[in-house]
Formats: sequence, C-alpha cells, structure tokens
Amino acid sequence: MKVKIAKNSGFCFGVKRAINMAMEAAKKNPKIVTFGPLIHNPQMVEKLEQAGISSVNAISEIKDRPTIIRSHGIKKDILEEIKKKGIEIINATCPYVSKTHEYARHLNEEGYQIIIFGDKNHPEVIALKSYVKGNAIIMDNVDDLPDKKIDKIGIISQTTRNIENFQELIKALVPKCGELRIINTICSATSIRQKSTLKLAKESDLMIVIGGKNSSNTKMLAKISSDFIETYHIELADEIEKRWLFNKENIGITAGASTPDWIIVEVYNKILKCIGNSQKQIHKVEDIPGFKEE
Amino acid sequence: MKVKIAKNSGFCFGVKRAINMAMEAAKKNPKIVTFGPLIHNPQMVEKLEQAGISSVNAISEIKDRPTIIRSHGIKKDILEEIKKKGIEIINATCPYVSKTHEYARHLNEEGYQIIIFGDKNHPEVIALKSYVKGNAIIMDNVDDLPDKKIDKIGIISQTTRNIENFQELIKALVPKCGELRIINTICSATSIRQKSTLKLAKESDLMIVIGGKNSSNTKMLAKISSDFIETYHIELADEIEKRWLFNKENIGITAGASTPDWIIVEVYNKILKCIGNSQKQIHKVEDIPGFKEE
Repeated sequence: MKVKIAKNSGFCFGVKRAINMAMEAAKKNPKIVTFGPLIHNPQMVEKLEQAGISSVNAISEIKDRPTIIRSHGIKKDILEEIKKKGIEIINATCPYVSKTHEYARHLNEEGYQIIIFGDKNHPEVIALKSYVKGNAIIMDNVDDLPDKKIDKIGIISQTTRNIENFQELIKALVPKCGELRIINTICSATSIRQKSTLKLAKESDLMIVIGGKNSSNTKMLAKISSDFIETYHIELADEIEKRWLFNKENIGITAGASTPDWIIVEVYNKILKCIGNSQKQIHKVEDIPGFKEE
Repeated sequence: MKVKIAKNSGFCFGVKRAINMAMEAAKKNPKIVTFGPLIHNPQMVEKLEQAGISSVNAISEIKDRPTIIRSHGIKKDILEEIKKKGIEIINATCPYVSKTHEYARHLNEEGYQIIIFGDKNHPEVIALKSYVKGNAIIMDNVDDLPDKKIDKIGIISQTTRNIENFQELIKALVPKCGELRIINTICSATSIRQKSTLKLAKESDLMIVIGGKNSSNTKMLAKISSDFIETYHIELADEIEKRWLFNKENIGITAGASTPDWIIVEVYNKILKCIGNSQKQIHKVEDIPGFKEE
C-alpha cells in the first residue's frame, strides 16, 4: 500500500503571509484582534486564539484594539469605519484578493456591468461586491445566466474557484453581451493545487482531503477529487476511519491552502498507523512522498 | 413532399446596402469600378458587370475611375493610397465590418495583443488585420492556441463566423491570459441565418444551401447543415440533380447573405419541377413557405 500527498499541498502565499503578519503583530501588542476568522481553518484559528489573537465579528467588539483584516478581506464600508475610528489596522488581506477590489473599481469606472463568479455567502465575495458601485451580479454557475442581453460585462472570479467552471461560464456568457472583459483572478496557487489534486486522484483509489469544512478552496479540492474517486473531506486526523483504508492500494492526500502542516503530518502518520506501518512516521510535511514531486 | 426555406434567407443589410450604393453610383457615373468583387456571389457580380460596374484588383487598374470599396472592406494602406491619388471613393464596406476596424484600433491603443478569429485568406480578415498595429494573431479554430501565456488579449471575430465556435475558442483562451477582452463582432444577421438554417436542417431530410462557393457565411451555413443532414451547396438552380430529391419528404432551402433573391426563386421552382409539381411556381422569395415564419 502506498500513501502519497499531492504536490504543493497546504499553506499558500496569502495564508502564510496573513499568519506571519498576525503573529508578528501579536508579539508587539497582546490585545490584538482579527476581524472575522483570519483564515478558513478552525484549528489554526484556535491556535491563533491560544497566541492571544481573538476574532471579532462587529466593529463594536473591537474596543479600540489593533485590528487585523482577515485574508479574505472585509467590506469596504466596514474597513472605512474602522479607519475612521482611528483604530490601528494590520491589513492581512491576501494581495491577490486586494487586486480583485482594484479590478472591480476599474471595470466599474469604465462602465461595465460587473459579474462576480463565486459564492454569494463567502466573505471574499461579500467584500469584493462592496467595492462595486451599483449592482454586481453574483453567479455561482451557468444556471445563473442573466435573462437579458447586457451591453458590456466585466467578469471577475473569486480567487479560489475552479478554472474549468470559470471557462464554462464565460463560454455561456459570450452570446449574452456585446463586449465581455474577463480578468482571470483565479489565484495560481489555487489552480496548481487543483491540478495536482486531480493528478493524484487519478492515480489513487482513495483520497483524503484535509482542510476547513468552511474553506472554499478545500471544498473545491474535495469536489474535484470526488468526481474521480472515493474521497473524504476531513479537518483532523481523528476523523479518519480505519474501514476507509481497507483494501486500498494507493491512498492520496491533499490539503487546502489554509491547512497547517502539523495537521497534514498528523493525518499522514495516522494513516500509516491504521494500516499497521509505524516505522515510517514523519515530522515534516516535506517528507511525505509526492510533496516535492517534479 | 414539402419544400421549405429557412427564415430570413438571402441578402443581409450590408449586402443590400453595398449593391444599392453601387447601382446608384453607376447611374451617375458609368465608368465606375469596385475594388475586388463587391460581394461574394459570382452571379451578382456578373449582373453588376452587365450594369457597367467592373471589378479591379490593383490600384494601377483603377485609372482614376470612381471606386467602390467592396462590402468586406480593403486594406488600410490601399484605401489610403487610393484616397491620396484623389480618386473618388464610394465606401460600401459593411458598417458592421467597419466597426471591427475601429475596435481593432481601440484595443491596440489599450495595449492588447489582438487575436482575430477568422480565415486568414478571407478579404474581411486581411483588411481587419491591416488596422492592427504590430502583429495580429489570426486563429481559425482552437488548434491555433498560442503556446505562451499572453498578458492581455483582445479578440475580435470575422463577422460571418459561427458563435458556438467563437465560444469554444474563448473558453480555450481563458487560461492562456491574464485578461481577455472579447468584442462580439459576429453580425446578428449571420447568427440569425445560422440559427434558422440549423432549425430547418433538423426538420428536413435534405438541405440545399445556395450561395457563392467563395462566400464565408454561405460555407458556414453548409457546414452547420451538413453536420445534421445530407446537404448540397450550390450557386445555381442548374446544379440541382434530380436524384438528390429522390425519396425525400422534407426538403429545406437556405441561402447566404450575398445570394440574390432571383437565384433562390429559380432554385425553388427547379425543385418543384424536378419533383413533378409545376403548379406552385413562384416569383418572389417571400412566397416560399417558411421565409416569413414566426
């Protein structure tokens, strides 16, 4: 039996950056808070809380404490209100997410009807929508196509979406407008993780996807994988059931962009234990076969 | 046996306009010429010649005569050279085609790599390409995708292309660039003719497509139809062979945007004659069943 991890699994640049910024800020000021969970991983958020970084959900809860803006960004008016109150801001919004705000503003100025390809309930999309003047249309899939033809459409994607689904949507939109301007805001870290997950899923007879149940990019990895093979989306090693592994020859692991290394390592070691192989226990995610595969 | 014509077959706005402009100009000046064939229909071009409007292919052949610019447009430098010589110009370029030249210039100014979706040997594409500063990429289908990722792509279509093929190409281009700006320059007359041809092809067991063998939009109708059913692309009624009609219950006719009414009428009457029905002979294309169908 072989256990392998998808290349480049785990933390992306934006998540690493947000955690580092939060940790550094906490060293200087122990009273610091994040506005909304910093990233979509409950275990990492818990760890941040243990380091004294608690999460608030409303301006009234900030109580003048220095505030870290979560990696997914927050609504424009809320950010402005925090600023207006003179509260110190540490903006940990992923730079790729911040760019989508700029694109929205730019396309707006040029008179495009903005369409956001994403989940209307996701904090990244809620924040992005707030940067659009007028009404942004949010489309989750091709079923949400506008009824009437629109003269000029500008489309931006939630950064963690799947490129193939984005392509399908664009294909469907072409006859719906005179001009269509697409900014491909799907983050390359997202695409790379999706591709390596798909590759591993095709070689495996079981896939374990690790990451927050609230994490958009992790859910996407689970979806891509489950379209090919038996797949379980877990947050923690404890969730693994021995019966999943029964009679499996090739077990694949992948992890979302907000999944910390220590959880991935625990999952790998737990799988080895379940299959009765205790010699190969590892301590670093880099040591799992497949992680650095060319 | 039923014989039906696809809704809206025959002359489009741009072709009608070009012929009217040429005829009016010929009344005022019998020495007039067109630069290249005015439209892509050899029979109509012959009729224009009979009306004294001959076609030239080089500036040296103009010999100072007033010059009609063909409906597909001509290369920018040639147009400028004719102008510079002080020759009177009657510009019969289809206004929808002229618009593609403006879009090319605009996208150029904004720094987009221009891609033209079309046939590199078609006069419309040759003319359009000449309005692009720098190198325009011409793509006939998805096999022509660029190897390297391009930062900003602006894409324009030959006006007579098929929208579904355009959609496929755009879908394939999305991951090939950071930004993709699409101007949907496929003429609505083209789309409408293609849709009604497809509809009729689905109801027929034989299709006769009438129009110039050199006509891009007619060839597209023939392609769309032949993907569904036995199809013959003809220019003239004389080409019809009785054996094609043998044992057919529903015969469909369609005609390109540059096919004159009199040829369509001749084809219809010839079919009726071949199937032994001489009572229903008609004189106007509007009288063919299906032409004005809602």
